Amino acid sequence: MSVRLFVEGALGSGSAVLLDRDQSHYLANVMRKKQGDMVSLFNGKDGEWQATLATVEKRVVSLDVIQQTRIQETEPDLWLAFAPIKKARLDFIAQKATELGVSSLTPVMTRRTIVDRVKTDRMLTNAIEAAEQCERLTVPAVNDATKLDAFLTELPADRKLMFCDEDKTGEESHAALQSAASKAEPGAWAILIGPEGGFDDAEREKIRSHPGCVPVSLGPRVLRADTAAMAAISLWQSAIGDW
Amino acid sequence: MSVRLFVEGALGSGSAVLLDRDQSHYLANVMRKKQGDMVSLFNGKDGEWQATLATVEKRVVSLDVIQQTRIQETEPDLWLAFAPIKKARLDFIAQKATELGVSSLTPVMTRRTIVDRVKTDRMLTNAIEAAEQCERLTVPAVNDATKLDAFLTELPADRKLMFCDEDKTGEESHAALQSAASKAEPGAWAILIGPEGGFDDAEREKIRSHPGCVPVSLGPRVLRADTAAMAAISLWQSAIGDW
Repeated sequence: MSVRLFVEGALGSGSAVLLDRDQSHYLANVMRKKQGDMVSLFNGKDGEWQATLATVEKRVVSLDVIQQTRIQETEPDLWLAFAPIKKARLDFIAQKATELGVSSLTPVMTRRTIVDRVKTDRMLTNAIEAAEQCERLTVPAVNDATKLDAFLTELPADRKLMFCDEDKTGEESHAALQSAASKAEPGAWAILIGPEGGFDDAEREKIRSHPGCVPVSLGPRVLRADTAAMAAISLWQSAIGDW
Repeated sequence: MSVRLFVEGALGSGSAVLLDRDQSHYLANVMRKKQGDMVSLFNGKDGEWQATLATVEKRVVSLDVIQQTRIQETEPDLWLAFAPIKKARLDFIAQKATELGVSSLTPVMTRRTIVDRVKTDRMLTNAIEAAEQCERLTVPAVNDATKLDAFLTELPADRKLMFCDEDKTGEESHAALQSAASKAEPGAWAILIGPEGGFDDAEREKIRSHPGCVPVSLGPRVLRADTAAMAAISLWQSAIGDW
């Protein structure tokens, strides 16, 4: 089975990579790779590279980088901001949003958010694993949790905000997204997903007052927050992203 | 907290409903509902009804049906056929596909399918719970697992088949779906999602030879089977469904 790993350091022809303890353990003991075996590496900047295992010990594996197999490409500039949910479904959002191609993940605390602490390190681990498996060349940034007010205040005026409003007054998404994006390229976007109790009226008003706000509807059924996130990313990618 | 239950029997003004043991336990012991408390009921045929608890014992709860709160509506005729995957993600597909509005779920065995037995009773339990929570008026049918050849042979010629082909030669989905559907209504459709190793060439050829086949692309990243299913349903609903 071919192995693909995200590494931190620079990648280039002839460079050497020393894996951290977890990755060394994974290659040596879980995947049982031997000296001379091939793996793929990416670091989010230098494309994808083929490397061979140079030294293999239980806790220390080093690699020789051989040749580039894919060049780094521009990816959609799509943030996912969402009211955090409990553990298993938070893992799930980090994995699926990575597969579906978001560029960053930001937990946003709202008045009706129940979860009060978010393990962003765990989200990042999930995002890295998903990126390794889905053949992405990047790992989405995982940001610290922030309050909705601060998120909206700091959201640049020229970044569009796909607002999945459960009050069902949003527009049909495909048309709304295409008309908000310029013809040449989608530009910078964020998707905002509320908590399962919904945003309250004051929050909704503040969201709608952002200059880039594009309210869209996700249909007549009540979607759980993780389902809504996956649906919204899929619709964005299909309408104006790289699908 | 309001409770919403799927029941098998007929619902009408003045009818009485005797809950099964699990539902009785849930209302009496988990939700601690008392005589006179209100719940909502639906059966997939008669809309949604308000009912009050008439008798409450630990294992036997009966309800008096009072008045209709929603009428039954026509829902999209969208089957989801998918190569089954392992337990947790199979639960997940049943839940999410129900929220997203499919009318049936069919596990389809392909040459590269790893799972050999599918617990369809467990899928149905997941679908019922999701339908109760997402305010659907129906529960999707859960069909027995079938082989891909049989599925394709029995698939009516006038049912369109959204084929999510991981060889990336499918068309952009929104346009492909809209041009395949008639203007007035989407008609009868099925979505087909392959196993994580992909369909083999012979399978792909057979799928593409179905008269209703509409190949679509889900983008450049490798999606896990459950992610692909959620993405495909979202795109279908947005392009020609009820969103």
